[in-house]
Amino acid sequence: MNEFAVGMIGFGTIGSGVVKILQENRDILEARVGIPIRLARIADLDIKTDRGIRVDPSLLTTDAQQVLEDPNISLVIELIGGYEPARTFILEAIRNGKQVVTANKALLAAHGPEIFRAARDAGVDIGFEAAVAGGIPILRSLREGLVANRFEKVMAILNGTCNFILTAMTDNPGVSFEQVLREAQGMGYAEADPALDIDGLDAAQKLVLVLGLTHGIRVPVNRLYVEGIRNIDPFDIVMAREFSYKIKLLALIISHGDDVEARIHPTMLPAGHPLAGVDGVFNGIYLKGDMVDEQLFYGRGAGKEPTASAVIGDVIETARNVIGGKAGVVPPLGYAQDWTAPGRVLDIREIVTNYYVRVQAFDRPGVLSKIAGIMGEHSISIHSVSQKGRDKSGTVPVVFVTHLSKEADIQEASERIGRLDAVEDRPVIIRIEDDTLS
Amino acid sequence: MNEFAVGMIGFGTIGSGVVKILQENRDILEARVGIPIRLARIADLDIKTDRGIRVDPSLLTTDAQQVLEDPNISLVIELIGGYEPARTFILEAIRNGKQVVTANKALLAAHGPEIFRAARDAGVDIGFEAAVAGGIPILRSLREGLVANRFEKVMAILNGTCNFILTAMTDNPGVSFEQVLREAQGMGYAEADPALDIDGLDAAQKLVLVLGLTHGIRVPVNRLYVEGIRNIDPFDIVMAREFSYKIKLLALIISHGDDVEARIHPTMLPAGHPLAGVDGVFNGIYLKGDMVDEQLFYGRGAGKEPTASAVIGDVIETARNVIGGKAGVVPPLGYAQDWTAPGRVLDIREIVTNYYVRVQAFDRPGVLSKIAGIMGEHSISIHSVSQKGRDKSGTVPVVFVTHLSKEADIQEASERIGRLDAVEDRPVIIRIEDDTLS
Repeated sequence: MNEFAVGMIGFGTIGSGVVKILQENRDILEARVGIPIRLARIADLDIKTDRGIRVDPSLLTTDAQQVLEDPNISLVIELIGGYEPARTFILEAIRNGKQVVTANKALLAAHGPEIFRAARDAGVDIGFEAAVAGGIPILRSLREGLVANRFEKVMAILNGTCNFILTAMTDNPGVSFEQVLREAQGMGYAEADPALDIDGLDAAQKLVLVLGLTHGIRVPVNRLYVEGIRNIDPFDIVMAREFSYKIKLLALIISHGDDVEARIHPTMLPAGHPLAGVDGVFNGIYLKGDMVDEQLFYGRGAGKEPTASAVIGDVIETARNVIGGKAGVVPPLGYAQDWTAPGRVLDIREIVTNYYVRVQAFDRPGVLSKIAGIMGEHSISIHSVSQKGRDKSGTVPVVFVTHLSKEADIQEASERIGRLDAVEDRPVIIRIEDDTLS
Repeated sequence: MNEFAVGMIGFGTIGSGVVKILQENRDILEARVGIPIRLARIADLDIKTDRGIRVDPSLLTTDAQQVLEDPNISLVIELIGGYEPARTFILEAIRNGKQVVTANKALLAAHGPEIFRAARDAGVDIGFEAAVAGGIPILRSLREGLVANRFEKVMAILNGTCNFILTAMTDNPGVSFEQVLREAQGMGYAEADPALDIDGLDAAQKLVLVLGLTHGIRVPVNRLYVEGIRNIDPFDIVMAREFSYKIKLLALIISHGDDVEARIHPTMLPAGHPLAGVDGVFNGIYLKGDMVDEQLFYGRGAGKEPTASAVIGDVIETARNVIGGKAGVVPPLGYAQDWTAPGRVLDIREIVTNYYVRVQAFDRPGVLSKIAGIMGEHSISIHSVSQKGRDKSGTVPVVFVTHLSKEADIQEASERIGRLDAVEDRPVIIRIEDDTLS
């Protein structure tokens, strides 16, 4: 082999980054692989728009088959995103014996098992480091470097848009979610339709992949508890700071023997926690392995060059394997294919953690006693309570921090508290991850 | 293949950790590899001492040849450390077609090229993730996940003993280096003979390996500038805090085109830098890639289980390769073997950075002017100066922070300043890494 030919389907932002790296870092890539990596073909429905990068026009095609069927192409990079035709293209590439690299978290979260099985049967590599945490090599680390460990805990900031918004709300107390979201959209850190990010689905798709690697458990996204940041109120940001907490949208995995909690929601985190310093658009993955103890990975989780860096990392690894005559050796999710995880994902109602509970109550005698009474009836014991002055609406925020409590109890108590005449609405609940609480 | 048989030479602390992981995590290792990993033989001169772990006595031998020549053993783990007989054992294992995993940074820093060449010629894998930063999968990340990048900067805390001592001195202002060292020795965080750690050689050996991966440059340890933490004075720790700096022993790589700075010394770092929060025995690697931008890896850089976790990570990767029919595919340092780095390591006198310069001067008229005059004559321009009250010895510490200056100029000025009658000794020089200074 005197060169490694690569085809790409999807010439958007990340695709432009891939081309940029292949051009600008051609020399070091060749030094690191031993032969040149050649981009042989790029397919996209739009081959007119200027991507701000020079590409030989003869490489461009609107027909993906020109990539999928080219016998000279060893590896196909899929960057169109979404379910179809991405799924069909990837399966066809695999059937044609081509290696595959993709950044498509939505597709792999939904159709991973089918695609990974096809890759195994064909003996090809499928790389997807770019699907989680952009440029941070976290999937590879879970699958290889940290493979000796049982993963007791993973806490991860996997969505840069949410982290940017929460950081801005923390740095500018009082500013509303909507205001910061508009700002983020203006800066290009949030999509025009931001739902996928701010409602947590993007992070959930990533968590499905991480859970496959850490525990070998493959679940559909809709089996996870997912709560976004749309309802975060500036008041709760301020309260968090008073408690020396920061609010982050966390993807959490917590082991209980073979079973796991796997959930995504805004979380109060002690200001001294390694993840609390992961601000702005940055991503961070904190984990605890039974042998390796605590680790933190920090870096850019999105963006053109960081994501393309992960794509090219997979291309290079695969190129080395193909040149060495050995692709398809490392299982994509890091477990032998015929192995089935013995555990399951716990229902959110089964989890036990600490809670921040804010009740907007009318300032009448006996209200606090009624609320506390309901909590007591649901076995929720209170670590601290603080009541602030009356606000414009005439209600006072009463904030409880609970001892370890069961989610089912919190939900039921919350339901009942919300129905009290003296209470404005259902309480605001934010889960707390603080090892110092009991 | 229905099992993967491993032999181990060296049954000390890390070796015990390896046995522990193979025993306690047998099930997940098998799930992740597809077949069991069997520890077939352990060689150590001492096979009597109780390591606090149950091992079938028939596996133990005092004769390393029992490991090296066993035809059933596919992989040899070398954990005896030092140059010989480790080098001979590893080369013999390679000649016998066995894969090798080692944690031996001293050996690889000195004899890496010979050993890597032998591994390539024999077509075997040689894993050494455990040699740098313990459980943190940094070498694999540089070689694979981040392979698309030119590394513009690496700043790393690679020695837990030094970081523990500097952290303790920072947390307890006024406590001397010697006092903290004794404490660290009592807690098992420093060796009885701590020279290898505190004089920077351990970090330097690791930096040689990192530099091989980031730039393909292979230099002997003695080509690097290495300065340890033995002379760090509590006064400078206090001054650092006043400037909102923290002092860390950093291993630094900074690119200048093909050439690089590669140096190890105590460094003042802004308190907000991601590495400034890496405290105690923890290690951290901060890097800047041209495509991926900033990343931080944080975790335990030493200790029984974290280091053994890295050893087993390499064992698993190699086992997958061997089972898949192909080892020796990824070059150990990440570059094609016939490739030669075009750059060189700059001499310390060529570097340009900011400096903290403390002069102990007798409080006489005209002294400050003389010192500043010498600096000016050597083209050193001063960013700030602060003079503190007279101390016990009758001298006053005068602290300068310089604008960007050339090391050669600093050295020469320092030499001259030290010879002034009004000055007690050669100035204390601590390099500063602060992007906000010019």
